[in-house]
Amino acid sequence: MSDADLKHDPMDHTEDTVRQDAPESESLDEDNRLKPEFVRSVKDALDDEDTDRVYDLVEGLHPADIADLFELFDERERLTLAGAIRDLMGSEVIAELNDWVREALMEALPADVVAEIAEQLDTDDAVAMLEDLDEADQQAVLAEMEPEDRAAIESALSYPEESAGRLMSRELVAVHESMTVGDLIDFLREHRELPTEFWEVFIVDPMHRPIGTCSLSWILRTPRNIPLYDVMARDQTLIPADMDQEEVALRFQKYALISAAVVDPAGRLIGQITVDDIVHIIQEEAGEDALLLSGAGDGDINEPILLTVRARLTWLVVNLATAMLAASVVGLFQGAIAKFALLAVLMPIVSGMGGNAGTQTLAVAVRAIATNQLTDSNTVRMILREFRIALANGFALGLLIGVGTWLIFSNPLLGAVIASAMVINNLVAGLMGILVPVTLDKFNVDPAVSSAVFVTTATDTMGFFSFLGLAVVVGLA
Amino acid sequence: MSDADLKHDPMDHTEDTVRQDAPESESLDEDNRLKPEFVRSVKDALDDEDTDRVYDLVEGLHPADIADLFELFDERERLTLAGAIRDLMGSEVIAELNDWVREALMEALPADVVAEIAEQLDTDDAVAMLEDLDEADQQAVLAEMEPEDRAAIESALSYPEESAGRLMSRELVAVHESMTVGDLIDFLREHRELPTEFWEVFIVDPMHRPIGTCSLSWILRTPRNIPLYDVMARDQTLIPADMDQEEVALRFQKYALISAAVVDPAGRLIGQITVDDIVHIIQEEAGEDALLLSGAGDGDINEPILLTVRARLTWLVVNLATAMLAASVVGLFQGAIAKFALLAVLMPIVSGMGGNAGTQTLAVAVRAIATNQLTDSNTVRMILREFRIALANGFALGLLIGVGTWLIFSNPLLGAVIASAMVINNLVAGLMGILVPVTLDKFNVDPAVSSAVFVTTATDTMGFFSFLGLAVVVGLA
Repeated sequence: MSDADLKHDPMDHTEDTVRQDAPESESLDEDNRLKPEFVRSVKDALDDEDTDRVYDLVEGLHPADIADLFELFDERERLTLAGAIRDLMGSEVIAELNDWVREALMEALPADVVAEIAEQLDTDDAVAMLEDLDEADQQAVLAEMEPEDRAAIESALSYPEESAGRLMSRELVAVHESMTVGDLIDFLREHRELPTEFWEVFIVDPMHRPIGTCSLSWILRTPRNIPLYDVMARDQTLIPADMDQEEVALRFQKYALISAAVVDPAGRLIGQITVDDIVHIIQEEAGEDALLLSGAGDGDINEPILLTVRARLTWLVVNLATAMLAASVVGLFQGAIAKFALLAVLMPIVSGMGGNAGTQTLAVAVRAIATNQLTDSNTVRMILREFRIALANGFALGLLIGVGTWLIFSNPLLGAVIASAMVINNLVAGLMGILVPVTLDKFNVDPAVSSAVFVTTATDTMGFFSFLGLAVVVGLA
Repeated sequence: MSDADLKHDPMDHTEDTVRQDAPESESLDEDNRLKPEFVRSVKDALDDEDTDRVYDLVEGLHPADIADLFELFDERERLTLAGAIRDLMGSEVIAELNDWVREALMEALPADVVAEIAEQLDTDDAVAMLEDLDEADQQAVLAEMEPEDRAAIESALSYPEESAGRLMSRELVAVHESMTVGDLIDFLREHRELPTEFWEVFIVDPMHRPIGTCSLSWILRTPRNIPLYDVMARDQTLIPADMDQEEVALRFQKYALISAAVVDPAGRLIGQITVDDIVHIIQEEAGEDALLLSGAGDGDINEPILLTVRARLTWLVVNLATAMLAASVVGLFQGAIAKFALLAVLMPIVSGMGGNAGTQTLAVAVRAIATNQLTDSNTVRMILREFRIALANGFALGLLIGVGTWLIFSNPLLGAVIASAMVINNLVAGLMGILVPVTLDKFNVDPAVSSAVFVTTATDTMGFFSFLGLAVVVGLA
C-alpha cells in the first residue's frame, strides 16, 4: 500500500464530472438510484455477451454506483459483469461492495488476482475484503502479497473482529512536536508517499505517543514560524485498538470527530480512523435494531439464502416454544371456553394489544440504551415514565374495548372483564418492555437480540391468563 | 455569527485535556457514559443549592457530557443546573442538547438570553435551536438578534423542515478559479473571519457556481505557483437546498463525503454541509425504523409524556381495530370452538408465528428500501427470495408443530391441520412482509410507518381462518 503511483494524484481530475441532480441523467433516477431501464440494458448486453457494450454503459458510473449495479444482479450475472469490466474494478468499487457480494466474487477469483486487488486497497479496506474469506483462501491470498502489505494485514487481522484495530488505516501523518508550521508544510510538499487524503496531522512525542492534533485548516491559517506545539489542540479522543466499532462510532458522534488516533496498549500511535469509515458503521449499528428485534439476523438481502433461513428459523423456533407456553395457559381454561366460546374470540385482542404496547416500549428502550441515553442514572425515572404511559394507554384502550364489548354483546360483565385485563396487560407490557432490556444490558447481553422473546411471552401469557382467569373468577363461564 | 472573537482560536488550547479511556476518570465510566455516582453528586449539590460545588463538578466536563448531564435530570433539575453553570452553557453544549430538552430550556429563558445564545451558534445550530420554538417565541427571539444573524436564520427557516437548506452552514471558503495555491494560502492566513474548521475549499466561477473543490491536504502538498484550476477536483456532489436530509445523508454515505456544496435553484453556492452534521442524521434515520415499525413515534425518551402517549395510543387504537377484525374471523367459528375447545388453545400459535415471520421479512424489506438496496431492478428477485425463505420456514415450523400436536394430543388429523395452516400463514407472512412495504414505497408512503398494521392484520386473520377453516373442513368440529 505504499506504492506511490496508486495513490490519488491531485493533478489528475480531467475525467471527473460534476455529480448533480441532473434530471437528464441516463443512469440515475431522481433518488440517485440506478434506473431500472439502465440496469436492464446492462443485463441485456450481458445476456448478448456484448462485452464492449457492457463496458461502454458502465464506464461513466461512479465506483459506488458500479458496486450498486453488482448488488442488483444475481450471482451468475455478477461474475459475467466482473469479467466484462475487469479494468474498471478498481479499489473504490471493491471497497463499496456489500460484504456478501464481495466475498462471493473474491471466492470465484484466483488467489493472485485477489492479492493484486488487495494490494491496491487501503489496509482497512483490504482487511474488510479478506476477513470474510475462509482460512485457506485467506492464507493463499496473503502468500501472494508483498511482504510489507501482508504484514500490515496480518497485524490488523490479529485484532478482534469489529474492533478499532481492524477498522483503522495505517496511513497517517504524524510529526514531532518540535516542528514549526513551515517545517510541516515543507515536509508535506516533499513526501509524495503520504496518504491520499487526511484531515488532521497527529503530533507525537519521542515515544510516538500522540500528544495533540493539528487540523489542516489551522495549519493553513497560521504563519510558518509558529511551532506546532503552540498551535496544536491537546484535546483529543484516543481510541484503543481493541475498542469495539460500535463504541468507536459513539465517540465520533458524541465529539463530532473527523479523524481520531488509534493507540496500542502502551499508548503509541498505530493508526487513524476517519469519519468516512465510521459513517457506514453508524448506519449499520443504528439500523440493526429493527432487524435484531424481529429476529431477522443481520438482515442483509445479499446474504446467502441458507444462512438467512437458518438465522430466521432459529428465532422462530424459540418463539414457537414461547407460543406453546402461552397456549398451555389457554389450555388451563378449556372448560370455560367450551362453555362460553366468545372468550376464545376476544382473548387474542388482549394478548395482541399487550404485544403491540410491549414492542413500542421495547423499541424505545433498546434505542435509548444503544445511544447511551438510558443509563443507571435515569433508569428509575424512565421506568416510572413507562409505567405512567402504560397506565394511560391501558385505561384508554380498556375503556374502548370494554364499552365496545358491552354494547356489541350486551354483556356489561364481559366488558368489565376485558377492560380490566387490558389495563393489566398494558402494565405488564410497559414494565417488561423496559425492565427486560435494562436487565439484559446489565448482564452485558445485547438487549436488541433477545428482549422481544421475553416481552412477548409475558404479554401473551398474561394476556390470556388475566382475561380468562378474570372471566372464570366473576363466573362468566 | 461573524463575530471573530467567538470563533475558535487555534492558539488557545491551554485548558484542553486528552480524553482517553482513563479508568481513573471521576466522571465517565468505561463505556464513556457519565458515572451514576458522579450524576448523584451533582444532583446532591443541586438539592443543597450549593451552586459553587455544582460548578466545580461540571466545569471539567466536555460540552457533550454537560449536554448528557442535562438529559439525565428531570425538568426542574435542568433549570436549576442551567442557572448554576450559566457561563459554561456555551454554544457547544446547546448544540449537543436533545431537541426536547433544549426546547424546554429555551422556553424557560427570556427571549434576549436565547437571542444571545443563538448569536454565538453557527447558523445551522441556531436554526435547530429556534425551529422548534412556537411562532411567537421565535419572533421574539429573532427581534432581539443582530440584523445580519437574523437574516441568515430567517433565510434558513424559509427552507422546508429537514431539508439541506436548514442543515447547511453559511460559513465556508469559496475562492475564484484564477487563484494559485499560494494566493489561497495567503488569503487564508489574512482572513481571520473564516469558519472555525473547514475541510475543503470550494472553487467558484464568476456566477458563484461551484466548479470544483480542493481538499486541504492537496493544497498543503502542492507548490505555491500551481493554479487551483489545475489542482481542484471537478468531481463533486452538489446538494440542492431543498433536498431532504435523509437523501443528503445517503449521498454522504454513498460517496464518502466530508463536506458538500449546497446550491440554490440557479446553481449558485449558498452553503456547505459537513459530515459531522450528517452523522447525527444518519444515526437518527437509521435508528428510527425500529421505532416507526413498532408505532413508538419518534421514540425519544425526552419527549413530553403527553405527546408520547398520544403517538403510541394512536397506533394502538389502529391496531385495536385490526385485532377486532381478526377476532371477528374467530367469531365465525364459535360453534366449532364450543364443540372442540382445543382449537382455541392452538389457534394463537398459528397467528402468532405468522406475525413473527411477517415482522422479520418486514424489517429486512424496510431496511433495504431505506438504504436504496431494494429498487425496481431487483424487486422480483427479492420477492422470490422471500417466498423461498417463507416456504422453507413454513415447512420446518409446520413439521415441528404438526408432529408435536399429533404426539401430545394423539390426534394426527389435528396435527396435519395445524401443520398446513402454519405453511399457509408463513407464506402469507413472507409475501405480505415484502409486498406491503414495496407497494407503500411505490405510492411514496414511508413503509416503516404503516406496513406493520397491514402485515399483522393479514397474518392474524389468515392464521385464524386457515387453521379453524381447515379444522371444520376436515370435520374436526
